[in-house]
Amino acid sequence: MSHSRRRNALRNRLYELEIDALIVTDALNIRYLTGFTGSNGAVLVHAESDGRSAFCTDGRYRTQSQQQVPDLPRLIERSCPLRLATHATESGVARLGFESHVVTVDGQVALARAVGSEVLVATSRPVEPLRLIKDESELAALRVACAAADTALDGLLADGGLRPGRTEREVARDLEARMVAAGAAGPSFETIVATGANSAVPHHRPTDAPLCRGDLVKMDFGALVDGYHSDMTRTVVLGAPAAWQREIYDLVAAAQAAGREALRAGAQVRSVDAAAREVIAHAGYGADFVHGLGHGVGLQIHEAPALSQFGVGTLATGMAVTVEPGVYLAGRGGVRIEDTLVVSDGEPELLTLTTKDLVVVPC
Amino acid sequence: MSHSRRRNALRNRLYELEIDALIVTDALNIRYLTGFTGSNGAVLVHAESDGRSAFCTDGRYRTQSQQQVPDLPRLIERSCPLRLATHATESGVARLGFESHVVTVDGQVALARAVGSEVLVATSRPVEPLRLIKDESELAALRVACAAADTALDGLLADGGLRPGRTEREVARDLEARMVAAGAAGPSFETIVATGANSAVPHHRPTDAPLCRGDLVKMDFGALVDGYHSDMTRTVVLGAPAAWQREIYDLVAAAQAAGREALRAGAQVRSVDAAAREVIAHAGYGADFVHGLGHGVGLQIHEAPALSQFGVGTLATGMAVTVEPGVYLAGRGGVRIEDTLVVSDGEPELLTLTTKDLVVVPC
Repeated sequence: MSHSRRRNALRNRLYELEIDALIVTDALNIRYLTGFTGSNGAVLVHAESDGRSAFCTDGRYRTQSQQQVPDLPRLIERSCPLRLATHATESGVARLGFESHVVTVDGQVALARAVGSEVLVATSRPVEPLRLIKDESELAALRVACAAADTALDGLLADGGLRPGRTEREVARDLEARMVAAGAAGPSFETIVATGANSAVPHHRPTDAPLCRGDLVKMDFGALVDGYHSDMTRTVVLGAPAAWQREIYDLVAAAQAAGREALRAGAQVRSVDAAAREVIAHAGYGADFVHGLGHGVGLQIHEAPALSQFGVGTLATGMAVTVEPGVYLAGRGGVRIEDTLVVSDGEPELLTLTTKDLVVVPC
Repeated sequence: MSHSRRRNALRNRLYELEIDALIVTDALNIRYLTGFTGSNGAVLVHAESDGRSAFCTDGRYRTQSQQQVPDLPRLIERSCPLRLATHATESGVARLGFESHVVTVDGQVALARAVGSEVLVATSRPVEPLRLIKDESELAALRVACAAADTALDGLLADGGLRPGRTEREVARDLEARMVAAGAAGPSFETIVATGANSAVPHHRPTDAPLCRGDLVKMDFGALVDGYHSDMTRTVVLGAPAAWQREIYDLVAAAQAAGREALRAGAQVRSVDAAAREVIAHAGYGADFVHGLGHGVGLQIHEAPALSQFGVGTLATGMAVTVEPGVYLAGRGGVRIEDTLVVSDGEPELLTLTTKDLVVVPC
């Protein structure tokens, strides 16, 4: 079971931190460690074993937690962190960690009142480093999420969903409906559809602006599957591309390929950003690539590692990241091309399979 | 301007707390005090005047914050709480409050590192008590939100939107689309449509179950307008009601009327709950009314005061609350009737105007 394996991996961290047990209260970390998806819960991970660990939720989630967390002792109470803290100290825990990036100052006071402040150890982001490297069940969810987005775009193009007169908003809703039809729980973030000059706005929100012949149409979207977020961008052109559109498209595609080539276990995150950025800068468009190259994806749409000029750290096998350079010419249009990939020792695994050749939509 | 009036009201509280200024980091409290709706910001409210206060957000919200917060000095920086803390101490603040129910333990450490821990004063929920009493612009938004929900249900019924064969999910999406057409930004929470035996589940999520002749259909829904949440429930019957359906409907309607009658400035919240609960208990269905009578609504769908058996405190003019008794018979069906109302010295103002007579949908 992947959840118990993840709790075991966390135990190594608890030994390093010299704590007997950790109360996890962050909702995504709870889901990661137990599979629980309800809105109120907490888990106590004991450094020794799951038998001394415990899961707590309130009465509304009695049945759901039985199904989702069958492999941990279960407590039912509304105030989960306090209940687990008491449970821990009553069973001999002398050093009890809590997530200091999540627990509020009032929450810490309440915990201290329940078990004494001398027991408590503030630990910052003890679970997040584990989430950097995706395990097989996480990769499986990401693959399905990326496939749902591919299928949606494929269907949109095949069915003539991109045509002059249709609005950005209509295209966005269409893509989202197609992702749901392809098995997604929903979009993994607010879908971006940006046509014409709007495509030069990196994070444009869809409007009632109609697609026009000659427009670049930038679509940045993703699917949510089992809590995992896919992320992809494709930019197409309606009708024959102008020379400047072809130029920046080819440039961004070359930069994106350079970024993917640099993406490999052991590479510094900033060197991956640099590999793509140099291509764009060399062509004289450096000032028009206004954001980082990519970011991790998983239970959050944006998570570590950040692939940017200022990023710190190196890549490792199993990290899932985006590679998404762009060039944006204000008032004219922009191009971004984005994939989700999994880092490995060799070539990364490409999860978003839609072509990156310039798609010219006949119209 | 209502925002500056609200900041003035907060100043009284700062004097009581003996702090020179307060850093507000809760997103809803920021919206309440400034009108700002972005995802990253903070406001420093100085006990003396707005001239010594300041608003901070990052570069993405430069234009938006100029429009939404024209009446406060503005700082642009990503780490808003730290920037405001430094700004405060540099301008002579010796006792600086922060929201201890919002700021994390790590956040407090960062603040202490920036300005010294001796300056910081943990203050729990300093803004929330103000939000209990709605001012005129808040009531205006709530009225529009409630009217949008009324309009949606009216249209659904008039257009034959409730009919055998339609699914719970279809009815829920229909209600939501009608609220948006009536001016809502969206639903104020996940719409509940529960038909037949499902109506006995208090917080049922809509499924593909079809509505059937003879079903009770419970609809709990609301509209979001300018950040304010409306909340209403109506239960109708498809075709001629059975005797037991009529019986529990009339009972819940009588209990709801008793609750509304007890709702008045000066009343204890638990006595309002009791007024409705006694009607149901007297008829022998006390065990089937499994939740509290109501809750406050505003910038949150659930906020203070709680109208329950265990609630503490008294009502005051200007509080906006729901009154929503229910009787749920497992495996058979349930009835809930819910209004949003505004407390006053006399009869409360009823914001949800749809009839509470039993609507029998011909089919």
